[in-house]
Amino acid sequence: MPPTTARVDTAATSEDENFSYLPTPEETKYSSSPAYVHYTSNNTIYGTQFRAEPTPPKGVPLVCDASSDIFSKPIDVTKYDLIYAGAQKNLGPSGVVLVIAREDLIAKPVRDLPLMLRYNTHAKNESRYNTPPTFGIYMMGQVFKWILSQGGLKAMAVHNQAKAKLIYDVIDGSGFYRGVARAEDRSLMNISFRLPSEELEDKFIAEAASRGMDGLKGHRSAGGIRASIYNAFPPEGCRAFAEFMAEFEKKNG
Amino acid sequence: MPPTTARVDTAATSEDENFSYLPTPEETKYSSSPAYVHYTSNNTIYGTQFRAEPTPPKGVPLVCDASSDIFSKPIDVTKYDLIYAGAQKNLGPSGVVLVIAREDLIAKPVRDLPLMLRYNTHAKNESRYNTPPTFGIYMMGQVFKWILSQGGLKAMAVHNQAKAKLIYDVIDGSGFYRGVARAEDRSLMNISFRLPSEELEDKFIAEAASRGMDGLKGHRSAGGIRASIYNAFPPEGCRAFAEFMAEFEKKNG
Repeated sequence: MPPTTARVDTAATSEDENFSYLPTPEETKYSSSPAYVHYTSNNTIYGTQFRAEPTPPKGVPLVCDASSDIFSKPIDVTKYDLIYAGAQKNLGPSGVVLVIAREDLIAKPVRDLPLMLRYNTHAKNESRYNTPPTFGIYMMGQVFKWILSQGGLKAMAVHNQAKAKLIYDVIDGSGFYRGVARAEDRSLMNISFRLPSEELEDKFIAEAASRGMDGLKGHRSAGGIRASIYNAFPPEGCRAFAEFMAEFEKKNG
Repeated sequence: MPPTTARVDTAATSEDENFSYLPTPEETKYSSSPAYVHYTSNNTIYGTQFRAEPTPPKGVPLVCDASSDIFSKPIDVTKYDLIYAGAQKNLGPSGVVLVIAREDLIAKPVRDLPLMLRYNTHAKNESRYNTPPTFGIYMMGQVFKWILSQGGLKAMAVHNQAKAKLIYDVIDGSGFYRGVARAEDRSLMNISFRLPSEELEDKFIAEAASRGMDGLKGHRSAGGIRASIYNAFPPEGCRAFAEFMAEFEKKNG
């Protein structure tokens, strides 16, 4: 029986530049016989997001943690073997996880796992092996209906691009704000940027809060400012934030 | 490393009479060196409820599934080594579990469990090792405040006894209704009873539903009628149900 802790080979990393870019396929070196390839499609801390799926060696399953950008755009599920996403960013309240899996991949547990940790337990029982988190599932259903009412995933992609552009345009047109992530890798969900000094960042956060714009402090490992604009965040909010940014730069730049 | 599936020795059972009573301490035979003794304090299907905790052999931990009667009355936690309770009966929405554990019992996992299944992972991180089910936890907090506002657990016990008495009095004073559980073992949370025929039971359920009293069909393995009157169920509801029962008996008895 394999041990509980798997050996992890890092096929690619951008640690050398504080995770501010995404390694290219050319920079990616898979180990000789990986059990699967895992990636996280959107990095909430540094604000990077894969534009396209990595291509694992032939026959190697691709597993994705899509928690922070699921249903923000269409997904070609045929490229994946397993996708999992905690609900709390784009789908509903925390405490539910959406899993999309290739049936034959999850048919048998790869090791002697407790029953509740086997995907197959839930798949065979239509996610009702025991009493599931009913409120979270209900809310996810409401969110799915809302996504459909917005025009589905293609429309979500258009909305999210337009929303992020409002803010990135201010950053790109400024000598004051500096984006954390490389432009071609940056996320449509989490916009991370710095100001010329930490003092100005603190002031920025405080002034934004006084206008009802909260939660802007960057993750402690990244610092700076982080604006999270998940599916549910409205375009009006992005517009108001972009206006505030322009104004703040004018006064403090 | 021990296997995932533990060997279970049944120290006592009332299977001989379809689980309608609780074995006495004299009827309970523990195996020679149990790792722990587990019991479920309230049986939602057959409507039995322990009045007092079992007494395991000296030094053997007592573990209780208190999902269906937790906080319906005071608990002497010093008698237990671990209590766990799914929230969905007396505490809040499904998807959260309350665990009360002796610290030294959970300090080390007894076998090589995945991180998320180790009680200690959650204990060390104040239940916030990862994003917890925030809505369920918030709702549990609201329920705890409500319990305190009712006078705490002692008051809950009084309320619950009075609520159940309204319905058991109808059963006990009737030759029509027949309680499933032995009187001294019956539950204050789930009242299971039969009518003289399944036809009358179907009629009873349909007429009750027409008056807004729903969810009365017994569990498929027990049949009959089951009235679940958890903490949140109001005395007025018990009174209305008792009145309906008396009226139904008069018409059909």
